[in-house]
Amino acid sequence: MKSINRVFAAGGLLALGTTAAHAQTITGFFPDSHARQLVCEARLQELPTAQTFREHLRTITAEPHVAGSEANARVAEYLAGVMERAGWEVERAAYDVYMPDITADIDVGLVTPLRMPLNNQENILAEDRFSDNPTLLPGWNAYSGSGNVTAEVVYANYGRREDFDRLQELGVEIEGKIVIARYGENFRGFKAKFAEANGAAGLIMYSDPANGGYGSGLMYPEGRFMNESTIQRGSVLTLAYSGDPLTPFVPALPVDGDEQVERLDPADVAFHTIPVAPIPWGSAQEILSRMAGASVPSGWQGGLPFRYRVTGGVGLTVRLRVNQPLGLKRATNIVGTIRGTEFPDEWIVLGSHYDAWGYGATDPNGGTAMLLTLAEALGQMKDTGCAPRRTIKIAHWDAEEYGLIASVEWVEQYRDQLMSNAVAYINADGAVTGSNFSSSASPSLRGAIAAATKSVMYPGSDETVYDHWTRGTSDADSPNFGNLGGGSDHVGFYTHAGVPSAGLSMSGQSPLYHSNYDTFSWYERFGDTEFVFGPTLARVDGVLAMRLANADILPYDVVRYATDTKDHVATLERLADSLGLAIDLQRLKDAITGLEDVATEFVAARDTRTQTGGLTPDAARTSSAQLIALERAFLYMDGLQGRPWSRSLYASPDPFSGYASWMLPGLRYEIETESTQGVSTWEAIYIQAIEDLTERIRAATRTLHD
Amino acid sequence: MKSINRVFAAGGLLALGTTAAHAQTITGFFPDSHARQLVCEARLQELPTAQTFREHLRTITAEPHVAGSEANARVAEYLAGVMERAGWEVERAAYDVYMPDITADIDVGLVTPLRMPLNNQENILAEDRFSDNPTLLPGWNAYSGSGNVTAEVVYANYGRREDFDRLQELGVEIEGKIVIARYGENFRGFKAKFAEANGAAGLIMYSDPANGGYGSGLMYPEGRFMNESTIQRGSVLTLAYSGDPLTPFVPALPVDGDEQVERLDPADVAFHTIPVAPIPWGSAQEILSRMAGASVPSGWQGGLPFRYRVTGGVGLTVRLRVNQPLGLKRATNIVGTIRGTEFPDEWIVLGSHYDAWGYGATDPNGGTAMLLTLAEALGQMKDTGCAPRRTIKIAHWDAEEYGLIASVEWVEQYRDQLMSNAVAYINADGAVTGSNFSSSASPSLRGAIAAATKSVMYPGSDETVYDHWTRGTSDADSPNFGNLGGGSDHVGFYTHAGVPSAGLSMSGQSPLYHSNYDTFSWYERFGDTEFVFGPTLARVDGVLAMRLANADILPYDVVRYATDTKDHVATLERLADSLGLAIDLQRLKDAITGLEDVATEFVAARDTRTQTGGLTPDAARTSSAQLIALERAFLYMDGLQGRPWSRSLYASPDPFSGYASWMLPGLRYEIETESTQGVSTWEAIYIQAIEDLTERIRAATRTLHD
Repeated sequence: MKSINRVFAAGGLLALGTTAAHAQTITGFFPDSHARQLVCEARLQELPTAQTFREHLRTITAEPHVAGSEANARVAEYLAGVMERAGWEVERAAYDVYMPDITADIDVGLVTPLRMPLNNQENILAEDRFSDNPTLLPGWNAYSGSGNVTAEVVYANYGRREDFDRLQELGVEIEGKIVIARYGENFRGFKAKFAEANGAAGLIMYSDPANGGYGSGLMYPEGRFMNESTIQRGSVLTLAYSGDPLTPFVPALPVDGDEQVERLDPADVAFHTIPVAPIPWGSAQEILSRMAGASVPSGWQGGLPFRYRVTGGVGLTVRLRVNQPLGLKRATNIVGTIRGTEFPDEWIVLGSHYDAWGYGATDPNGGTAMLLTLAEALGQMKDTGCAPRRTIKIAHWDAEEYGLIASVEWVEQYRDQLMSNAVAYINADGAVTGSNFSSSASPSLRGAIAAATKSVMYPGSDETVYDHWTRGTSDADSPNFGNLGGGSDHVGFYTHAGVPSAGLSMSGQSPLYHSNYDTFSWYERFGDTEFVFGPTLARVDGVLAMRLANADILPYDVVRYATDTKDHVATLERLADSLGLAIDLQRLKDAITGLEDVATEFVAARDTRTQTGGLTPDAARTSSAQLIALERAFLYMDGLQGRPWSRSLYASPDPFSGYASWMLPGLRYEIETESTQGVSTWEAIYIQAIEDLTERIRAATRTLHD
Repeated sequence: MKSINRVFAAGGLLALGTTAAHAQTITGFFPDSHARQLVCEARLQELPTAQTFREHLRTITAEPHVAGSEANARVAEYLAGVMERAGWEVERAAYDVYMPDITADIDVGLVTPLRMPLNNQENILAEDRFSDNPTLLPGWNAYSGSGNVTAEVVYANYGRREDFDRLQELGVEIEGKIVIARYGENFRGFKAKFAEANGAAGLIMYSDPANGGYGSGLMYPEGRFMNESTIQRGSVLTLAYSGDPLTPFVPALPVDGDEQVERLDPADVAFHTIPVAPIPWGSAQEILSRMAGASVPSGWQGGLPFRYRVTGGVGLTVRLRVNQPLGLKRATNIVGTIRGTEFPDEWIVLGSHYDAWGYGATDPNGGTAMLLTLAEALGQMKDTGCAPRRTIKIAHWDAEEYGLIASVEWVEQYRDQLMSNAVAYINADGAVTGSNFSSSASPSLRGAIAAATKSVMYPGSDETVYDHWTRGTSDADSPNFGNLGGGSDHVGFYTHAGVPSAGLSMSGQSPLYHSNYDTFSWYERFGDTEFVFGPTLARVDGVLAMRLANADILPYDVVRYATDTKDHVATLERLADSLGLAIDLQRLKDAITGLEDVATEFVAARDTRTQTGGLTPDAARTSSAQLIALERAFLYMDGLQGRPWSRSLYASPDPFSGYASWMLPGLRYEIETESTQGVSTWEAIYIQAIEDLTERIRAATRTLHD
């Protein structure tokens, strides 16, 4: 009770500072609910502590917990227990999905000019008490093919599409060779995809010291960067859909459950067939230093102490053996719910995966511990007068590392509800790794995110998170947001179900990502060393969630649909220009101008209405439904070119590299493939979407005028 | 005679192709002399051969020939002999200058944590028959201080002013330490100057593999790039004047000659006092890899396989001992002359130094062999009806490597004649190293250089040198010229005597510069492998020299004085802006506009006059004198700030880095030192110069109208 008294005192102070409070008017709140909201936010902000955050992280990362392992099941139970004790209804959403056995049965080594097995596991370090755990695995890539090949080698730089194109220009034969490529610049799955498409017999990936090793800074354990034994693990799955490989579009419900779903035959799924494995540079050096061919092109040289070469020559052969059985395994999301007091069907979802390649201190569990800390705070709030008006869910996803698997299954299971009722999805994958706030977000959430950071103090300073975030940017009124790409659990929500989505994080460099050194020991020394950034992010996420949950009129930044889209069209025009492609998107731009006018009218109506106040519960429900439906205007139910599961017209992962974001991806695809005919066809689809969105905003505006 | 017949045939063909000849009208020739010029140029172009060029280079680079050595004296006699046999009057211009003994008495090594002498000479290679010559020297830096120090080490990146500033910001103590810095980014003398100014006890310089080693390509002998034992030698002299350290402004005439000059007491000359020595990265690695301090800042990491650190710590001490006695030594220029038939007092000077750090195949003797090839061609021409109307001199300078020494002494000796009569100086230091034509030039020579490259074919192709040069540039009508900086023998001519100057070269990457691997063996494999680029450059230099020698009206590009200066003023304005310095150069810009108008009138007058033809010999002499005098308008006889010997207001070496060019250096100095008062003072000086130049052009125009 003591802490709650303190909280109310802080709330009172805030309420007294009328000028400040006025300057900080929160979008979408009527005058009476605005005051309550400020008090509740102030109370919330008192609750997250460094001690709590640290203890959760320490517990979650006590053991390596790859998806499918018993240790990961223990983590899930810890998460569920904490949430339940904090007063959340907890669902254990289980799926049977097609995943690798945890065996890491792999050999990599030189065969000629000498037999030399190559190390593929991190060194044990006296300075890291976690590094000698016997359950730690060697380096491996989920969804590698199985096989045993011995062949000459070809170095393919980052293994990007343009790198393989370059090899072709150089006349390098890849057929039957083992490709060796460095990590970085694209999703590793595409390295495998391109290698296989070029006829390679296998793929070895390694972490070059130029990319996160001594080229970047001091090495672990002395510094935060990779040492010569550090290995980046990771999935290489590159299907045209995310989630369980056998159940696109439908949830992979348990085989022993009441409801049965149809599963694909694995033989019909486009898995890679060549063996793929990751090694550290200490091992890669043994191969690369023995290569005998021509010097690499400009930009291909890495950080090892010799000139890199494109081909190894006949005198150098390497063996790569991977045995990776696959089968149905159980994956379980832990999803907690606090039901909304007034609009329980309207959902705000926060989530992070909890499975990890090893201990997962930075990826993902800083985010997991942050969400647990927030869950405890929200639980405490609800019992003391600050229960949310809409439903808040905090989800801990399983098997993200294999391919966003269990979050996508959950989205597919609840797709109808999400499409109708989800206000927002806020992702927290690896969200607490350092001192810099950052965010990628769909347009309508950007205003609310920026506003939330203005209400939270940056630790150990007298500035806000917003001040720290925007310090040094050219325009303090327009903070830098990223666009949503691929690679984490927002993908199902955003690109498949059209739920406004964002990732928020306190970020630092975490080059030991996916290695056995991503430990609590590393985290204490180089991550969130005082355990203050986790609680800070919990405050930002919490304030954001509470505003979305309690607003009288949802605080979407609807004008940004127009302004951001205009920017993206301009970027596409420049891209077309650089490719020498003559396109004319004037009709689309005219439609966007129309959208901007209507969006501006909506904002004016909302401003007026929030000052005068008063919507009946029915009108409020209508307004929410209308606003939630806005983003769905960008859902194109036939899906994007060659990937029907990806339905968002607004953003998608780059289909040629996997991680980067593509904006207006339907149009971009036609431009990248230089089809003017396709551009016209897709421009019409986009105009339709923009006009649909315009009409939806117009309807939402009418509701506010009624 | 056979070859001459062929030449006339070629000339006849050219004369028949009237359209082509018209398109190729040469600036400054009256109709009758124009025809003769075309024939002579065609004949000249037939003469240089790959065999001749190769043989000269092979002979000159048979032995290592550092300035002051007997081998270098033998090279001088070879050059003089070839020139004499080709019909040139040859002067052996001797000077007694203050230079180091050739001893290279140097030790570098670790003392703690272990005693380890460090190698400082290139490995002997079976693939390079020149690499085991017993007269080859270890690595050394001319004008090092002498001393013997053992101290801790500090890494200073490139040893630039900004690098030492950064060390100060980082709170690194340099006093009493040995600084280790990598080569590159500035003149090495400034590394020594800044190290000493910061209190360092000594300086070790090394070639990092990131800068011309495996970071750039395959290593010697497999490739053209540095290997782990390659050492860049070089002078570290950084006085406020070039040439002999003891005789600024006056020629260092021999002490046993008739005329005696006053020499400074060496104790009064600002030589460095700390020991300085260069080592290869194979040795530097032994030091750098044992350093124990903080990680280097961004941009300081080199290519060795560990994280670089700023300080070595107390456990690492290094010994540096240099014993370098200095004394008066003989330096001898070989200067050949073909007297002009009509205007013998008007000089066109071409030159290159011939002394080298080792064999000097690329630096400088590709240029030397090219000049010898050209000398033989011009000698043959003069005896067969194509003698030059003005005097042509070809000079082979001595002791350039120690500090542009003997060319500067010659300029000081002939300063009055040069200032009155020199039409141009064309430099050829290291001028033939590969396949790409390039040129740095003062403005008035740019038009003539570009025109010459349009008349010479690129070897093995059906395009001209100009076509090859400008291919891929944004505007084929404005080829890329560099500005004249420091570091070679044009400095005396241009910055001290105000002679329009240029360097022309056929360039490739020659990273073994100043090392014992700069051999004929390297050159045959990686330089001018077919020995075609030397003859090509001889043609371009020859056509240029013959046009300058034979023109009726000198073909200076006078409009470029205005247009280039305007660009340089704009650059300075941007620089001031970036420093937040408010300056107003409007009056200067107005003066330049006035200059441009008058220069344009001159060009029109010259075009008219060349079509109508006919200047009396007296008027021609007046015109030449007036045009030669133009560049002198930029000579400021008080000299630049802190360096009275540097008199050109137009260009100078960067006084803070040594090699880079500073344009309008008087103004730039005040802007760099952020003195608005100084900017005003110097703007007035520049306006005076521009108005003086304008008046001189006006007078030259009047002569053409008379």
